[in-house]
Amino acid sequence: MTDPLSKSGLSRRSLLTTAVAGSAALTVPARANDPAITELQPWMQSLGDGVDARPYGTPSPYEADAVRRDVPWLTADPISSVNFTPLHKLEGIITPNGLCFERHHGGVAEVDPAKHRLMINGLVDKPLVFTMEDLKRFPRENHVYFLECAANSGMEWRGAQLNGCQFTHGMVHCVVYTGVKLKHILEEAGVKTNAKWIMPEGADASAMTRSIPIEKALDDCMVAFAMNGEALRPEQGYPLRIVVPGWEGNMWVKWLRRIEVGDEPWHHREETSKYTDLLASGKARRFTWEMDVKSVITSPSPQAPITHGKGRTVLSGLAWSGRGTIDRVDVSLDGGSNWTTARVDGPSHTKALHRFYHEFDWDGEPLLLQSRAIDSEGWVQPTKNALRDVRGTESIYHNNSIQTWYVQKDGEVENVEVG
Amino acid sequence: MTDPLSKSGLSRRSLLTTAVAGSAALTVPARANDPAITELQPWMQSLGDGVDARPYGTPSPYEADAVRRDVPWLTADPISSVNFTPLHKLEGIITPNGLCFERHHGGVAEVDPAKHRLMINGLVDKPLVFTMEDLKRFPRENHVYFLECAANSGMEWRGAQLNGCQFTHGMVHCVVYTGVKLKHILEEAGVKTNAKWIMPEGADASAMTRSIPIEKALDDCMVAFAMNGEALRPEQGYPLRIVVPGWEGNMWVKWLRRIEVGDEPWHHREETSKYTDLLASGKARRFTWEMDVKSVITSPSPQAPITHGKGRTVLSGLAWSGRGTIDRVDVSLDGGSNWTTARVDGPSHTKALHRFYHEFDWDGEPLLLQSRAIDSEGWVQPTKNALRDVRGTESIYHNNSIQTWYVQKDGEVENVEVG
Repeated sequence: MTDPLSKSGLSRRSLLTTAVAGSAALTVPARANDPAITELQPWMQSLGDGVDARPYGTPSPYEADAVRRDVPWLTADPISSVNFTPLHKLEGIITPNGLCFERHHGGVAEVDPAKHRLMINGLVDKPLVFTMEDLKRFPRENHVYFLECAANSGMEWRGAQLNGCQFTHGMVHCVVYTGVKLKHILEEAGVKTNAKWIMPEGADASAMTRSIPIEKALDDCMVAFAMNGEALRPEQGYPLRIVVPGWEGNMWVKWLRRIEVGDEPWHHREETSKYTDLLASGKARRFTWEMDVKSVITSPSPQAPITHGKGRTVLSGLAWSGRGTIDRVDVSLDGGSNWTTARVDGPSHTKALHRFYHEFDWDGEPLLLQSRAIDSEGWVQPTKNALRDVRGTESIYHNNSIQTWYVQKDGEVENVEVG
Repeated sequence: MTDPLSKSGLSRRSLLTTAVAGSAALTVPARANDPAITELQPWMQSLGDGVDARPYGTPSPYEADAVRRDVPWLTADPISSVNFTPLHKLEGIITPNGLCFERHHGGVAEVDPAKHRLMINGLVDKPLVFTMEDLKRFPRENHVYFLECAANSGMEWRGAQLNGCQFTHGMVHCVVYTGVKLKHILEEAGVKTNAKWIMPEGADASAMTRSIPIEKALDDCMVAFAMNGEALRPEQGYPLRIVVPGWEGNMWVKWLRRIEVGDEPWHHREETSKYTDLLASGKARRFTWEMDVKSVITSPSPQAPITHGKGRTVLSGLAWSGRGTIDRVDVSLDGGSNWTTARVDGPSHTKALHRFYHEFDWDGEPLLLQSRAIDSEGWVQPTKNALRDVRGTESIYHNNSIQTWYVQKDGEVENVEVG
């Protein structure tokens, strides 16, 4: 494990001094007469459920608002729509399976794994059809990757619109995938020398397809059957999906039933009329697959206001890049005039979410919170206007610009723009 | 991320050659007439559930047997009992929250976080009472740790008894904890110089208590409020538990309401009549907190037999140590006569589960599968009889010996002893 403090250059002792002593000392009120201490609570006086009550556990009823949410006006029908990960309620870098945002085009396919097959055809020496059991006979690997929809933050191109990081940035999740490197499967079939592209196809009613260059397919793509230790969830492609690390989520075809190998891309709907980047000139960029370096402050944020008043405050957020790890995250409390390096904590994996923190002493005055991530290739997250200067405002996809939250005196937080 | 192959000394190419080509090539039958391919399946022809159907998702109905299980005859009542993690169904190193084994002594307390407090008292300058919101104002950290009950594999002292790694080894789970280092909280209260021990106490009806040396408390202990990204589950201590990395699970007091600081241990029930190691001499060892280096093969295993017949086979398992990381795992197919180094894959964190694999070509003859882990301090997992020579057979706790699975010609697997 990486030392959680090593990136910031602080010693453990200096963090302790900064955070626990000094001007930001936490004033804990005397609570000797607090009824929560002086009175017996119901759970101290009665026996709870036994170990036979929940073969598969669920969250506390007090966490009922930590859920995925959809925005009904966003699409014509919930079967071809999206819901959003509640980033403001989450900690660390792993998204629990029950809270991973969903995007589907024909609803959630409920596939019987015994009747599911993966076909490899096209430019191969030997077309093959695998059962799920066949696939589990290949060497397995485990990798932590984020999956982000290319349309994440897409509403922000034209201005601050949705009030909460769940809605502005919640089309991303990060889990541990277990599966087989796609190259092992392709090499079992024998890829012909003129093969340049692959096309994964889904088994749901929408039969999703995308074109992927053979170099990516033979590099880090996986055929995954598990997430966070258990079988894929139905809405994430149970029993099989393709994992395309660092690239836009639409390519991670779910309910994966077929991979065709070809010598040119297929120019299907999802790579022509959709998932292209319309520029101000009227031209559209195609095949912009990599997800750019990005970050967002998850607390304080519109759904996670400051409720404790002045004094010691924990700012927390997420950063990620489709090109590698996160080297540094800077945070600003004044809309980008002054920047401080945040503390990146916990495991750092390539093409995975990273958690950052900044502890500060809030004086109760308004704040303009921003975060700016820098990845291991040196890419820096741009301001909204810097991005618009290059890309215009007609796009939907690949908005990785800096987000601003306005913290008011009462601790409430709003989505605003400062450039 | 660690290169998944670096520990084995194999290059990526040599793994590919070993696993995908050569004698162990996977013979995939021609399936051109397979009805799963030639016939349209129901999920290809109809629309599924929309994004508004499951605000908090659940597993596929086809995974209904991936659940925690209890053993009714093991204890007098399910409210003071244990259920077991289904290790044979899991991949990677993270246990999904819904599948983490439970052990409680008064049932699952359903605590209202608004009425929950953490009191620090005893040998401190200033006794303090924290709300949950107070605790979230300290600097947070994220760590992957396993939690193992000291009684895990306890039935094996007297011989092979339970048929499945869920029951022999399933009192262990591994999650990412988010919380605050305990030392920050203790230093806020000011620990007196004569303080030598702490005693965490639970808010459930059993009011669990254990004595922990102050050195451990000020080292890596945490007060955790989240696991795998979301709030702790009720059965894991919602809203607060103490995390005691690498040490026996009974010390990880749940529903944490109080920490007393003292100058000697409290000698309470769970460290005198329970959680001590009875030797053949009649003497009992006390305060044996660290969980020793251990491993188990999760597949093939009694609940995960070989169903595909001869040929390429994936052996998979878990290894862990309360003293650090795992340096090496050896596997034997012949009951310990010959050993091969397994491939450790995925993230390696101190005091966390590690996943290992061994791909081999099964000739259809019986096998005696064993795994033997070696940790970063050089400790080696012992055979059952080597452990009994030192500790006798009267103990319940701290059995870290090598497990043997007997694979029969038909692929069925049994728990057996070979020494």
